[in-house]
Amino acid sequence: MKNVGYNEYLKEVLEQLPKGAFLTVKNGEQLNTMTIGWGTVGYIWKMPVFMVLVRHSRHTYRLLEEAKEFTISIPLKNDFKKELALCGTKSGRDMDKIKEAKLNLLPAQTMETPIIDGCGRYFECKVVYQQSMEPSLLIPEIKGTAYKQGDYHVLYYGEIKASYINEDYI
Amino acid sequence: MKNVGYNEYLKEVLEQLPKGAFLTVKNGEQLNTMTIGWGTVGYIWKMPVFMVLVRHSRHTYRLLEEAKEFTISIPLKNDFKKELALCGTKSGRDMDKIKEAKLNLLPAQTMETPIIDGCGRYFECKVVYQQSMEPSLLIPEIKGTAYKQGDYHVLYYGEIKASYINEDYI
Repeated sequence: MKNVGYNEYLKEVLEQLPKGAFLTVKNGEQLNTMTIGWGTVGYIWKMPVFMVLVRHSRHTYRLLEEAKEFTISIPLKNDFKKELALCGTKSGRDMDKIKEAKLNLLPAQTMETPIIDGCGRYFECKVVYQQSMEPSLLIPEIKGTAYKQGDYHVLYYGEIKASYINEDYI
Repeated sequence: MKNVGYNEYLKEVLEQLPKGAFLTVKNGEQLNTMTIGWGTVGYIWKMPVFMVLVRHSRHTYRLLEEAKEFTISIPLKNDFKKELALCGTKSGRDMDKIKEAKLNLLPAQTMETPIIDGCGRYFECKVVYQQSMEPSLLIPEIKGTAYKQGDYHVLYYGEIKASYINEDYI
């Protein structure tokens, strides 16, 4: 692993994101990974921030509410298609997705939550702000597509505590 | 001007952002530019998004509430230090900041709101979601530094409708 600035390789990050990345959260003995396709990166409150969206219905939501930390593992060279599909459709309430998808874990640098081996770009984040979406403030077009079931997201703003790449998988 | 992917030159964008960028809003005949130092870029709701933060007390807040669109002009080659300082400390309620700072305007590609000439990187955004910050959800450390006066931000999520560079100023 090689530490890089939080604003490096963002072109690659945002090209991959719609195809999927792993959002991992560990709360005590409970560990789960879900697939995310959306997020933003930037600089707020004088700190680098990665913002992720998690629906209230998700197992990850329960874990994040307690753990207040997460890692993001972004596949670059390996596409992890099957693994991302599994982690995006199954719930950690019903199975151990990490075992099921045969994902290898590696320790993170700054937190208990691990990262997923074999990815190219990693972020470790501590939640500094979060907010449930307010449906009335969203344009109707998005309401009708992303939230047909009324299952809105919580927006988690994570201070980026570590940012690095695995040069073998970039 | 040359159109580029929304995820290009983000390293440069995020290196400049803390030093200042121009957030411009036009509502009817009312036009204003303010200096921003914070923001995030990414992909949400199947669209590229630039998120900016504007305090309720700002003149720009009033304009944005009506116009629901903004442009971001990011200095790269020219540092615009004096101009950014002026647009970050004076209010558009009290003066025509664009005239005062001797900024030249150029027409945008997709909206009424213009851009600032002489910058390297541009975004044009339509607000698709916005939300006032909820103080109780923020960690105390940030409350005590960024919001001592209790003047919280509104977070504006703008769909990126155009993304381009001026190669002369990059």
